[in-house]
Amino acid sequence: MARQAKVGVLGASGYTGSELVRLLLRHPQVEIALLTADRRAGQAMRDVFPQFSPFALPTLVSIDGVDWKAAALDLVFCALPHATTQKVIAALLAAAPATKVVDLSADFRLADTNAYARWYGGEHSAPHLQTEAVYGLVEVYRDEIKKARLVANPGCYTTCAQLPLIPLIRKGVIALDDIVIDAKSGMTGAGRAAKENMLFSEVSEGFHAYGVGHHRHMAELDQEFSRAAGRDVVVTFTPHLLPMNRGILSTIYVRASAQQKPEDFHAIIAQAYAGEPFVHVLPFGEMPQTRHVRGSNMTFIGVAKDRKPGRAIIGSALDNLVKGASGQAVQNMNLMLGFPETMGLEQIALFP
Amino acid sequence: MARQAKVGVLGASGYTGSELVRLLLRHPQVEIALLTADRRAGQAMRDVFPQFSPFALPTLVSIDGVDWKAAALDLVFCALPHATTQKVIAALLAAAPATKVVDLSADFRLADTNAYARWYGGEHSAPHLQTEAVYGLVEVYRDEIKKARLVANPGCYTTCAQLPLIPLIRKGVIALDDIVIDAKSGMTGAGRAAKENMLFSEVSEGFHAYGVGHHRHMAELDQEFSRAAGRDVVVTFTPHLLPMNRGILSTIYVRASAQQKPEDFHAIIAQAYAGEPFVHVLPFGEMPQTRHVRGSNMTFIGVAKDRKPGRAIIGSALDNLVKGASGQAVQNMNLMLGFPETMGLEQIALFP
Amino acid sequence: MARQAKVGVLGASGYTGSELVRLLLRHPQVEIALLTADRRAGQAMRDVFPQFSPFALPTLVSIDGVDWKAAALDLVFCALPHATTQKVIAALLAAAPATKVVDLSADFRLADTNAYARWYGGEHSAPHLQTEAVYGLVEVYRDEIKKARLVANPGCYTTCAQLPLIPLIRKGVIALDDIVIDAKSGMTGAGRAAKENMLFSEVSEGFHAYGVGHHRHMAELDQEFSRAAGRDVVVTFTPHLLPMNRGILSTIYVRASAQQKPEDFHAIIAQAYAGEPFVHVLPFGEMPQTRHVRGSNMTFIGVAKDRKPGRAIIGSALDNLVKGASGQAVQNMNLMLGFPETMGLEQIALFP
Amino acid sequence: MARQAKVGVLGASGYTGSELVRLLLRHPQVEIALLTADRRAGQAMRDVFPQFSPFALPTLVSIDGVDWKAAALDLVFCALPHATTQKVIAALLAAAPATKVVDLSADFRLADTNAYARWYGGEHSAPHLQTEAVYGLVEVYRDEIKKARLVANPGCYTTCAQLPLIPLIRKGVIALDDIVIDAKSGMTGAGRAAKENMLFSEVSEGFHAYGVGHHRHMAELDQEFSRAAGRDVVVTFTPHLLPMNRGILSTIYVRASAQQKPEDFHAIIAQAYAGEPFVHVLPFGEMPQTRHVRGSNMTFIGVAKDRKPGRAIIGSALDNLVKGASGQAVQNMNLMLGFPETMGLEQIALFP
Repeated sequence: MARQAKVGVLGASGYTGSELVRLLLRHPQVEIALLTADRRAGQAMRDVFPQFSPFALPTLVSIDGVDWKAAALDLVFCALPHATTQKVIAALLAAAPATKVVDLSADFRLADTNAYARWYGGEHSAPHLQTEAVYGLVEVYRDEIKKARLVANPGCYTTCAQLPLIPLIRKGVIALDDIVIDAKSGMTGAGRAAKENMLFSEVSEGFHAYGVGHHRHMAELDQEFSRAAGRDVVVTFTPHLLPMNRGILSTIYVRASAQQKPEDFHAIIAQAYAGEPFVHVLPFGEMPQTRHVRGSNMTFIGVAKDRKPGRAIIGSALDNLVKGASGQAVQNMNLMLGFPETMGLEQIALFP
Repeated sequence: MARQAKVGVLGASGYTGSELVRLLLRHPQVEIALLTADRRAGQAMRDVFPQFSPFALPTLVSIDGVDWKAAALDLVFCALPHATTQKVIAALLAAAPATKVVDLSADFRLADTNAYARWYGGEHSAPHLQTEAVYGLVEVYRDEIKKARLVANPGCYTTCAQLPLIPLIRKGVIALDDIVIDAKSGMTGAGRAAKENMLFSEVSEGFHAYGVGHHRHMAELDQEFSRAAGRDVVVTFTPHLLPMNRGILSTIYVRASAQQKPEDFHAIIAQAYAGEPFVHVLPFGEMPQTRHVRGSNMTFIGVAKDRKPGRAIIGSALDNLVKGASGQAVQNMNLMLGFPETMGLEQIALFP
Repeated sequence: MARQAKVGVLGASGYTGSELVRLLLRHPQVEIALLTADRRAGQAMRDVFPQFSPFALPTLVSIDGVDWKAAALDLVFCALPHATTQKVIAALLAAAPATKVVDLSADFRLADTNAYARWYGGEHSAPHLQTEAVYGLVEVYRDEIKKARLVANPGCYTTCAQLPLIPLIRKGVIALDDIVIDAKSGMTGAGRAAKENMLFSEVSEGFHAYGVGHHRHMAELDQEFSRAAGRDVVVTFTPHLLPMNRGILSTIYVRASAQQKPEDFHAIIAQAYAGEPFVHVLPFGEMPQTRHVRGSNMTFIGVAKDRKPGRAIIGSALDNLVKGASGQAVQNMNLMLGFPETMGLEQIALFP
Repeated sequence: MARQAKVGVLGASGYTGSELVRLLLRHPQVEIALLTADRRAGQAMRDVFPQFSPFALPTLVSIDGVDWKAAALDLVFCALPHATTQKVIAALLAAAPATKVVDLSADFRLADTNAYARWYGGEHSAPHLQTEAVYGLVEVYRDEIKKARLVANPGCYTTCAQLPLIPLIRKGVIALDDIVIDAKSGMTGAGRAAKENMLFSEVSEGFHAYGVGHHRHMAELDQEFSRAAGRDVVVTFTPHLLPMNRGILSTIYVRASAQQKPEDFHAIIAQAYAGEPFVHVLPFGEMPQTRHVRGSNMTFIGVAKDRKPGRAIIGSALDNLVKGASGQAVQNMNLMLGFPETMGLEQIALFP
């Protein structure tokens, strides 16, 4: 694509929206042509996110007022709540079938209509798009993504857990019925809705688990782990909320299916990602820290041995707003529009 | 004991030391008669911890200068580093055999001399006291503690993990070879030593695991879980550091040994602690938060079912400086000196 | 008062409400007989603040359903929003004239009806009570408070600024037209309402001023400083929000009215509070830190000299929820009901 | 300069060092040819700052082992402690006189030898270089910097205070004897030295002033404000430490020298920076927040009117590690080496 690509961000007043704008403003091949935010329509982006004050950006508009055909966007990032999303994208693609879409909601992540209904409590309103959508975990589905019109950007927790586990599951080296994922996320993962339990004073200087035994990201893990294994895989998964803004760390407990050692697990993961720009495997025995990927599109993975023979402890860290959301979305865009995969994503982690 | 008990705090310039002073200053039956801090000897407590400025306290002295016999203390809290501790306590008890001791280090927690040498890298210099010492987890060893002269106050991580697990292990309802303890601690658990990796800028806005596969608290867990089970038990245990000051949350993954259900686990734990003033079991399915026990001597425990049949997820939360250290030490003192067990420990959690 | 006093807390689901419950639960002369929270009526206090799970407390009720006469409360703490407050208290005192009231809102702090209307944008609906109310800054109005039926508990910012400045203003030693108060508050001062700008992710790792040039606490400062000076005093006051829960630090810039030196200012303040249990003046040149008063009813004050002759920099620190709100309210209650002033307020600061 | 410039970073194991590496790694015209860190010599940068693990960087070496002539560096960033700095730079420039230097210490900021001796407690060992050095506040000394061999990068507090005040002082519109600067800084401003008072548990959830009346940055403010005024100017300046990593906010209190209004001050500042890429003046009455410049090289400035006539309150916010240190250093480098001034500094603030 020789000219600048015209892109839009739907839901620009949320955190994944602002993170997209942060990245896209510095992407050399992209022009931000549309920003929507229904409740803030008519305002400038600087009223919603003052860090953008120095930059020229389109005024926020309401989705209902957009003429998709006239807008002639090359690609749209959809950062809307689930359920709303499927209606908006269906309308968009009906009006402008050549526009490509990276959807950051959960609406198109599950290929199985029944699974969607079971986990999200209602029929999917655009099952034909559910079928068309490609799951956007780049390191696994790169070839499919390049050809896709609609990509379902993976969840933050699930990206973090899948990257280390998929290679091990594919190789058949770990016991599939004994995987425990203890995940901890910074607060931006919970979004920008004004809820009492997300207030600073409720969150600061404390820690807790939530969604124990029934978090929706489980559906996505089930789907992808089962695909990788060729059989049903159900994992134990517990999310927690950290008193910090950005970062997910998953501590994953696995057991060898036969005689493999933790060192073998490390070698398998390291080999799987040897050429990947955004997955870095630490030396055996070292564990990742979320602060070292903050603001970057990197995932850091570490493998250590448990003191119990045949068991390993795996750490996986990423920034939930970047590789866990908007960074991966831009990575998907780059593939879909034929740009170099790392374009606009070279930022180095901000530490301290 | 009719008169005020005379007590001393060795190592008053650290966090467990200051926390002891906070509690003892308001204990109605105690007089703080001695405070030591070798590197700060000669200074006032207010120079080391300004929150004590309004209160009259003994000047900090060096341990070497204390005449234990003349001091005639009823009880000494020892909040010194391990290894140093055993020498100090041996000398103290030789000079003043009637003085009682609550030791907050790891030096007397392991009954087995070989285990001590293996985990702490050297011979124990006071094995006779190692034999005499009683392990100070009050809810488990209350009767022995009442008669003890030397009590080894448990570690913070281990108190947090033992309280929910001991009743289950004793009842034989969980598979002993598949216990995973994923523990997260606030920074005060790491002490007050000036180390680069404990600086605010290194810790804030980030999260990581440490001591993966080889943390010393494992020795204490092994000992107590094996005692409870009547056979060797080795658990998987991973500690993490939280960007906050106080609080430990342990997320514990267990599997039924036979047909028991998570609801049964909840009932067993609830029954075990029905009369306990400092252990509170939440309704089935609710999980604890560290913020709700901050500054108090409470442990909150929750049990929820995993979506995988026969598996449960247990949460256990306490303040590492109170029930995980100094509060439990005062609770031990109360038993050893014949005071009501809850005296001086009634503070309610400080939230928010 | 020989028997336990029966007290109520109106607005128990907010932070000043929960802080009152924390303190009152351990007050030896008080029985918590009533807790209201309109939007949470019918729920247990533990559903709103889980830290109270282990304790027996009245179920939350709606204010409208309370029969004040039948309730026969000795004293009510009113922790409701302004405007609502004046209506509730007027009704309460009409039905139960013998009940005493400590009001934590701004509704009765201003004695001047016009000032109220100007700053709060509307007529006061209970001007007779506005006249009756005593301003509850204990260290200044102790005698009046002992005889009062209705006490207006001072604001957090204003308590913090008044304690060091009132003695200096009374003595006439500082220039009244050049007082600058740069105040910084933890987030609990903003309350528990679910607002976007109070979310953890909006507040953490950042700092800003707000209400620049027009914060309502100015009205209270004007009134009290003018009373102390015997002439109109208008100060410069800028509040800021800190990424932490508890604590206010005011940095105050003053200039001598004549030849006095900063050391004189220190001596005047120290003398004014020599016998006060809850105001502690640090040695000259030392400055206070909010962390050393956290959770306690103490105010720490420091005075240092500026490098410019005749100018001093004063620091004043308190916990906005304790001495800045609920602790001072209990202090007022103690005076009004004839209890020792420090009863139930002896907690030592929780640091770290 | 057609080829890549070869640059070195002295003191790469500190925070300004790592921040330089973060920026330089993505600078399109620069090759990082040398990294020194005496105490970590022989280690990889990834051992000191794991966020650089994925990148190829020179091994850390000791300064003593560097052959400056052979190294043939185009420019060196010096991020060493003061006093050490002047010796290192003198030796470097003696051996390699064509190498340019941006010094981030305080050693060359004061042009007056006596002022240096007074504030830093000793003779300057390279007074000839002190004379040669250009003060590197780009927006004020751009032309001189372009021609300089040695630039003294300004301090973080002083950059933050100078940017809004210099235009006002130059125009003579504010009273020069009544300027109060109340400054608040994140913890990275205190560096990476392992000190007890910088531990997470000492800093978190608290706030305090330090260096009251005698902070070394005053010398730099005196010099620059006096230069701008053409007469001696001494300001009141109080620094505070915030429980967060990055960001300085200065709240500045000024008074009109005659009949000017706060709106005039705003217009003067806005006009002064109208074309500046890294200084953004908010609309009159809006105040800046540190979070909106985090990680970027921007300074945000706001002006509001005080309720006292003729007085204004000015807010100035920047990231102490970027515009307050390493970003401004790269901006200086760009000028000195003839690159576009904004090259490598286009990162947008990371919020949330």
